[in-house]
Amino acid sequence: MSATRSPVIIVGGGVIGTSIAYYLAKRGQTVTLLERGQLGIEASAAAAGMLGAQSEMEDTGALFQWARLSRSMFPELSGELRELTGIDIGLVREGLLNVALSDVQEAELRAREKLQRAAGEQAQWLSAAEATALEPALSAATRGALYLPSDGQVDAPLLAAAFAQAAQVLGAKVQPFAGVQGLLTAQERVIGVQTAAGPLYSDHVVVAAGTWSGQLLGSIGIELPMYPVKGECFSVRTPKPLLKKTLFSPGCYIVPKAGGRLVVGATVVPHSYDRKVSLSGLAELMERARGLMHALGDAEWEKAWSGLRPQTADGLPYIGKVPTVAGLYTACGHYRNGILLSPITGKVMADWILGGEGAGEQGTASIAPWLDAFSPDLSPRTVRVSNSYEGQEPFSAPGKELISIETAH
Amino acid sequence: MSATRSPVIIVGGGVIGTSIAYYLAKRGQTVTLLERGQLGIEASAAAAGMLGAQSEMEDTGALFQWARLSRSMFPELSGELRELTGIDIGLVREGLLNVALSDVQEAELRAREKLQRAAGEQAQWLSAAEATALEPALSAATRGALYLPSDGQVDAPLLAAAFAQAAQVLGAKVQPFAGVQGLLTAQERVIGVQTAAGPLYSDHVVVAAGTWSGQLLGSIGIELPMYPVKGECFSVRTPKPLLKKTLFSPGCYIVPKAGGRLVVGATVVPHSYDRKVSLSGLAELMERARGLMHALGDAEWEKAWSGLRPQTADGLPYIGKVPTVAGLYTACGHYRNGILLSPITGKVMADWILGGEGAGEQGTASIAPWLDAFSPDLSPRTVRVSNSYEGQEPFSAPGKELISIETAH
Amino acid sequence: MSATRSPVIIVGGGVIGTSIAYYLAKRGQTVTLLERGQLGIEASAAAAGMLGAQSEMEDTGALFQWARLSRSMFPELSGELRELTGIDIGLVREGLLNVALSDVQEAELRAREKLQRAAGEQAQWLSAAEATALEPALSAATRGALYLPSDGQVDAPLLAAAFAQAAQVLGAKVQPFAGVQGLLTAQERVIGVQTAAGPLYSDHVVVAAGTWSGQLLGSIGIELPMYPVKGECFSVRTPKPLLKKTLFSPGCYIVPKAGGRLVVGATVVPHSYDRKVSLSGLAELMERARGLMHALGDAEWEKAWSGLRPQTADGLPYIGKVPTVAGLYTACGHYRNGILLSPITGKVMADWILGGEGAGEQGTASIAPWLDAFSPDLSPRTVRVSNSYEGQEPFSAPGKELISIETAH
Amino acid sequence: MSATRSPVIIVGGGVIGTSIAYYLAKRGQTVTLLERGQLGIEASAAAAGMLGAQSEMEDTGALFQWARLSRSMFPELSGELRELTGIDIGLVREGLLNVALSDVQEAELRAREKLQRAAGEQAQWLSAAEATALEPALSAATRGALYLPSDGQVDAPLLAAAFAQAAQVLGAKVQPFAGVQGLLTAQERVIGVQTAAGPLYSDHVVVAAGTWSGQLLGSIGIELPMYPVKGECFSVRTPKPLLKKTLFSPGCYIVPKAGGRLVVGATVVPHSYDRKVSLSGLAELMERARGLMHALGDAEWEKAWSGLRPQTADGLPYIGKVPTVAGLYTACGHYRNGILLSPITGKVMADWILGGEGAGEQGTASIAPWLDAFSPDLSPRTVRVSNSYEGQEPFSAPGKELISIETAH
Repeated sequence: MSATRSPVIIVGGGVIGTSIAYYLAKRGQTVTLLERGQLGIEASAAAAGMLGAQSEMEDTGALFQWARLSRSMFPELSGELRELTGIDIGLVREGLLNVALSDVQEAELRAREKLQRAAGEQAQWLSAAEATALEPALSAATRGALYLPSDGQVDAPLLAAAFAQAAQVLGAKVQPFAGVQGLLTAQERVIGVQTAAGPLYSDHVVVAAGTWSGQLLGSIGIELPMYPVKGECFSVRTPKPLLKKTLFSPGCYIVPKAGGRLVVGATVVPHSYDRKVSLSGLAELMERARGLMHALGDAEWEKAWSGLRPQTADGLPYIGKVPTVAGLYTACGHYRNGILLSPITGKVMADWILGGEGAGEQGTASIAPWLDAFSPDLSPRTVRVSNSYEGQEPFSAPGKELISIETAH
Repeated sequence: MSATRSPVIIVGGGVIGTSIAYYLAKRGQTVTLLERGQLGIEASAAAAGMLGAQSEMEDTGALFQWARLSRSMFPELSGELRELTGIDIGLVREGLLNVALSDVQEAELRAREKLQRAAGEQAQWLSAAEATALEPALSAATRGALYLPSDGQVDAPLLAAAFAQAAQVLGAKVQPFAGVQGLLTAQERVIGVQTAAGPLYSDHVVVAAGTWSGQLLGSIGIELPMYPVKGECFSVRTPKPLLKKTLFSPGCYIVPKAGGRLVVGATVVPHSYDRKVSLSGLAELMERARGLMHALGDAEWEKAWSGLRPQTADGLPYIGKVPTVAGLYTACGHYRNGILLSPITGKVMADWILGGEGAGEQGTASIAPWLDAFSPDLSPRTVRVSNSYEGQEPFSAPGKELISIETAH
Repeated sequence: MSATRSPVIIVGGGVIGTSIAYYLAKRGQTVTLLERGQLGIEASAAAAGMLGAQSEMEDTGALFQWARLSRSMFPELSGELRELTGIDIGLVREGLLNVALSDVQEAELRAREKLQRAAGEQAQWLSAAEATALEPALSAATRGALYLPSDGQVDAPLLAAAFAQAAQVLGAKVQPFAGVQGLLTAQERVIGVQTAAGPLYSDHVVVAAGTWSGQLLGSIGIELPMYPVKGECFSVRTPKPLLKKTLFSPGCYIVPKAGGRLVVGATVVPHSYDRKVSLSGLAELMERARGLMHALGDAEWEKAWSGLRPQTADGLPYIGKVPTVAGLYTACGHYRNGILLSPITGKVMADWILGGEGAGEQGTASIAPWLDAFSPDLSPRTVRVSNSYEGQEPFSAPGKELISIETAH
Repeated sequence: MSATRSPVIIVGGGVIGTSIAYYLAKRGQTVTLLERGQLGIEASAAAAGMLGAQSEMEDTGALFQWARLSRSMFPELSGELRELTGIDIGLVREGLLNVALSDVQEAELRAREKLQRAAGEQAQWLSAAEATALEPALSAATRGALYLPSDGQVDAPLLAAAFAQAAQVLGAKVQPFAGVQGLLTAQERVIGVQTAAGPLYSDHVVVAAGTWSGQLLGSIGIELPMYPVKGECFSVRTPKPLLKKTLFSPGCYIVPKAGGRLVVGATVVPHSYDRKVSLSGLAELMERARGLMHALGDAEWEKAWSGLRPQTADGLPYIGKVPTVAGLYTACGHYRNGILLSPITGKVMADWILGGEGAGEQGTASIAPWLDAFSPDLSPRTVRVSNSYEGQEPFSAPGKELISIETAH
């Protein structure tokens, strides 16, 4: 095989692209991952790392089914990655409290409790006294909380780093600073990608480039509407741990990390392409967080940052085979659920490319009915927006005077 | 001269100690400065750099007289330091707006206007419309402002660095990471200092160690009550400069730095020995700053920090000769005015040590009546607290089971 | 004028793009600058800031003519930028020593002395004793040095920041995080650019995007061969300034910055797309620097970094009008000379776009015969590689299986 | 109990002081730890974290006996700390290769092999081929290596943080930014410490303040000669892990951390009080490291730092009861072995203070004969210098005009 050909090319070095590389390499597949900048420093590094399969979901449809299966993959994955790379991804399985601060929120959470129990998940409404007994730092304004013992969290920046390193240990070629300029196609097949250092040919190309995926696909006529939704976060430190469980409420979550560190997120700024943390965004988030947990006021400021979540027109990711271009796959648009969905996305993509499940792997039987739910074939998808908690504006497509790019031959 | 003797020793490498070293070295005096850690990284580095000779002062007493003389020294000093070190200390002489947001504040500022004019200083009350014409970013809540065209600002961290470098270029020996453990005395004279590397002898020792000065002096029975007052600050960036003049109001100031950077300060936390930036302190300061200038909400967050201002019992610094120990001088307790007072403190101290004014130097005639106002001989000082704007609690001395340090011979 | 149209669009927010924006805005021209990431953080921020009009040049051709004119623009520019933004760009005009450490180097430098004097520039060969008298820190291995008193240096990161801010103060619209995906053309005219947020139309588009310019132009069939040449640098600090003049020798330069900081550069790694600083590159550079100035060994380590210099096939920049597409301009490929050439590039580009020189501007008469020397019309250009000091390998074009990008309509 | 009294006071918040606090708190003891700055940021944060019970030792005396017992405590400790704080201290038990690059080194290591086997430890001489089979990245210059499978490593900065947090979770009061100015004594007993905020009384005071301990003890006439030995380090990153085991050779060690990070140490600069990383120190260390492992040249530079190791006159720590002052203990002077010895130091100190071993604790029977080996009663100690590998100069006491601190009542 020449240096200008690879059996599989993955475009994008975030948590999704590196997960796909990892699951392919684990099954012995030679694969090349191309990332235009550094690995895992965009949305993957900005995430708080919640594994909110239940807390983030509004119904028991495909997203929920994928999410809970993916969540269940973390314990084994954590061990594998540590073994291969020495990196501890910081998996914590202490559960999550979905906190109500008003009657309306309480009613909403009680409805969720029923829904999730019906789906076979653990979920328990706690009175204010019960919730405060579990987490004494909760604000006195707490009306109660829905306790989700199976949700958890990981250290998101370390997850991406661990996937990338593990893939390389298993033989994958992972190239940072290798921007893909375009997709190469011939007779309705993908044949490779164009990079600044020349073309790289392949029969299988996976586009896992977050928000940027839309532009890359658009350049060959595949229209997958996507836009960035900026989220601003901050972190503080306390001398000893104040929380064991993640707190989650409308507009604010507080995730306890190792060593008394607390990560607080996140604002919602749709259609923002910059990563500026604004003073007003920060002030608003601080106020909400202190409403959830008064003792936060005494905590020591650490830092603020932001990330751009890749959102899609209907709020659901684009994971699957592009119907009109053979050999081309997408794995993008995970919005707030990229960390959570990374294992299952990597595994399913590896199954599709390699044809059948890998021996010894945890089965995907439970999502069999939902395997095509996120297909980039848009026609059958009903446009809806999930994650309504964040209250983002409905997607409005920008004006469509399309780029006219011509190529010399 | 042996390596264990220096004609003058300065203890403390902040903006005060390095200024004294600079003015001594400039007059040809051999001098050794000892700093326990890095140079200029404590209160000097945390300061916003306001030269508020008028904005900070409440009467026309000694502090005001020293302050306005010191302020007048900056233009020439700026040129000297740049010539010797290449460092531009960022002197800006665009004036300051003391902003009123209420009737009470307006009345208070109008009284200041009269007082300062009577003292021969420029000061002009501006209506809200006039103030906003000068600084369009002022909040709509502005009731008016006292315009102080002669007040200015510098880059505080660079000032300390420039003093230290310039002193060395002129021959001073400046030693970071050289902690002084105690003062050596004999027959009511200072004879040197004790360091971890052994004693260093001298007939002149200047204690310019900020808050820590009180402990060092206390160890030989000189009681100069001092305590730290923590101030928390933050900075933001804007694409183009929003302000030309410094804004100043009760509890908040906004200082425009080069390149669209704005420094916002400061909280007041007396008797705090740590440098933790608390979430509540930050949130409160943000709210006040946005009240002063609404557009700040869109600015880009940069960072937060804090410093410990060295406060004294009566709010006035301790600058002078210790009456009971020959050869021992103090230059500490400058509270919020260390940057502003650093030139005059350095110059006066050099005059005292070298006996008479240096040729070619700007005279200190204007403060002649006030030369002893800050003497560390406490008996004649009337206890009062200046800088009442910050509203700190009255000083309460902690329990006094003192340790006394004597020197064996 | 609608929000989707701008009279002039500049693509690229480095020191070249922001200079063009500044010179256009200064003449009253409405202009929009689009930068895909943060402003001025790529090659512009990595540069050491040498203004080596003489030290870098090998003949007295076009590059030299542009360079010396551009160098002469800095004093006035420095004042303008400081006035508009408060930013001091750190212009130092202390000259440069081109140091010889061997007979061969001495001969080479003596030849340069003749050449440069013939061109009317100041240049003087100094014996080892004379050179060491000027800069006592020079290594004992010094054989002599060519003294170039007119060369100087600036603070490169601050220059880009100052251009960007000044342009905005003068009315330019400068947008970071606004990536340009393609150029829009119609009937052999440029009509605008495509961004993620939609198209932006204009009759004048300047491509000033460093290394990335080649890809953008290539997408519409304009072939301008370019490739990155990585340069690794480091900096140290000394208690007092050790150098006044910049030192320059084969493979190493040492640039004295304010406050005793020394910037040392730079390795040459052609065709490197990453910005990794390698241990071996750093070790080699340290050795060369200590050979030039032994006292560097005692200096305090500060940090290491790298940048990608945009190199062209023949070593000369592409500055001019694209002959085949009306309204399209290039200003890229400045290699090691971007900081130095930024003023003249901005000024000439403004003259071309606005038709004629601006009133009150310094003339470009001295480069009139060389105005078309860097035209992106490649046919008449003789391929040669300048800056041979760095010894980079001859340019080899990568394989040219061209990208096939198709667009849906 | 009043706020001015604590049953036990520990002075110093590095890995030794926090370990003592942890082992005391674990047994239910109320304890106050006072640290003058931030916790764990001095020598503890600079350490590479080797647990070199065998690699660092030169004989099978007390230091070796304490070291191997302490090493054996890490697995259980790691679990406890993770449970209490969420912090994974990064314990790696992959062994260490003591590499020979010359005949002399080979002979020396073969002698060590015999010595350590005689002491019941695992140690195996490997030929160059065998060593390279284990670690293919070893330099071709390798003559062989002594394989020590029981030595390991931890993440040193996280160890100090975990001890401090765990102690607080268990009830200890841990106060950063609380400098101790002097020890309070009465009638040959310690009665407390003096702080800036007043006195704090206690019947038990442990001085665990690293290099600074000597000064504090000296102030009441306890002479324990100590001096700092600066060590400069750096770290690099590789895309995939290059090493599993720590490499150790004269003057250089390379410790593989999680995620492909390699920590390289360390220079030896005795009697240095600053923490400056010098260019020459760094260059020398780089050369040695590349001699050990050529592939290091391609690694990506991360950063450099330094720390001050607290060395004693005879190279052995001062751990024990001060014979002349009842209630006063020392735990300092651990030189290069602070991380390794921290568990056993904390446990033994807790046993001494609380009288007898804690139930359920791992016994200290194996060091029973060596319990007094490090007593701060210096008279019986034979002066010798261990760790001769680093070749530091013999200790020379500085001039001794001492200051004595007495307490007024």
